[in-house]
Amino acid sequence: MNMERKNIHWHNGDVDAAERAALKNQNPCVIWMTGLSGSGKSTLANAMERKLVEMGRHTMLLDADNIRHGLNRNLGFSETDRTENIRRIGEVSKLMTDAGLIVITAFISPFQKDRDMVRALLAADKFLEVYLSTSLEVCEARDPKGMYHKARKGEIAHFTGISSPYEVPLQPELTIDTAALSVKECIESITNLLQKKGFL
Amino acid sequence: MNMERKNIHWHNGDVDAAERAALKNQNPCVIWMTGLSGSGKSTLANAMERKLVEMGRHTMLLDADNIRHGLNRNLGFSETDRTENIRRIGEVSKLMTDAGLIVITAFISPFQKDRDMVRALLAADKFLEVYLSTSLEVCEARDPKGMYHKARKGEIAHFTGISSPYEVPLQPELTIDTAALSVKECIESITNLLQKKGFL
Repeated sequence: MNMERKNIHWHNGDVDAAERAALKNQNPCVIWMTGLSGSGKSTLANAMERKLVEMGRHTMLLDADNIRHGLNRNLGFSETDRTENIRRIGEVSKLMTDAGLIVITAFISPFQKDRDMVRALLAADKFLEVYLSTSLEVCEARDPKGMYHKARKGEIAHFTGISSPYEVPLQPELTIDTAALSVKECIESITNLLQKKGFL
Repeated sequence: MNMERKNIHWHNGDVDAAERAALKNQNPCVIWMTGLSGSGKSTLANAMERKLVEMGRHTMLLDADNIRHGLNRNLGFSETDRTENIRRIGEVSKLMTDAGLIVITAFISPFQKDRDMVRALLAADKFLEVYLSTSLEVCEARDPKGMYHKARKGEIAHFTGISSPYEVPLQPELTIDTAALSVKECIESITNLLQKKGFL
């Protein structure tokens, strides 16, 4: 195999992000769900992926299930580790959009600077920050995994909303209160956003 | 939005890896190129992705260009960091196959235990270890980035083949000496492997 510099033209034929997206006939983006534990991120992320797949779109969902036990298994919940957690998720999201996929993420992602870092990683218009504004009271009443109960007893350190802050997004592309809307209505809102932004 | 436990059935409708692959009408796998710097990994990875895209396959390529400057920008070249480098690449490869993609990676990945770790992460038959056996002499003569020259002068620490070991794969799915074959012949070999293993 000839590796001389004159043959670097091989690389002119490299497959790039635009070609991978074109092959899927879609415009990749990241639907970034942020909000308290129990605010409905996973439920909406899964329902949104179902909706997109039914529309024939190629998607990937990143959430605690496939990130915290895999790529980020060596991170804890200190502020430093949480920042690194979001940074890695942002980088993987970018790689997934380079692969031509529409990415949906479901992470608390409590810090504005971390969400802004991800926004800066991506082409700005590809980052859709969807803030689930469901109140702490509602989330704590739901407490789907019993986490708030444990956090109130002091059994979980750095628990967002109890012992660690959640910074409300300053300029999210969409705000949804899941206490006020059905899943169907929430999905319609996100679908409308995608249409408005040219992703559907 | 109802978050009560009885409604956990929502999750029964979650999109999974099998459905994402079916939507692309393909069987995802990881083509893991390993070998010395200059052995031809990037050239073959790019040519192989081109070939797969021409066959209508949905792919992603992971290499130093999109990993070392992104996800793994906070890692160096110590043995510990190299292991973490490969671990993260393995985890991202797994996520990419869960997204339904055929993944091609181009990293020196010099340690057997690290490559075995990635193999163990994936369903065993999805990991295709392609060893580029191009000799150190040939690689050093090519020296496409002038790295061997710098390493010989002691300007680069932990340089594989010079000041850090390369562990030859014990049971690779395929061995290719790029000094003896054209790019076209190499791509044919890999294509044959994919066909034999049921990925094409």
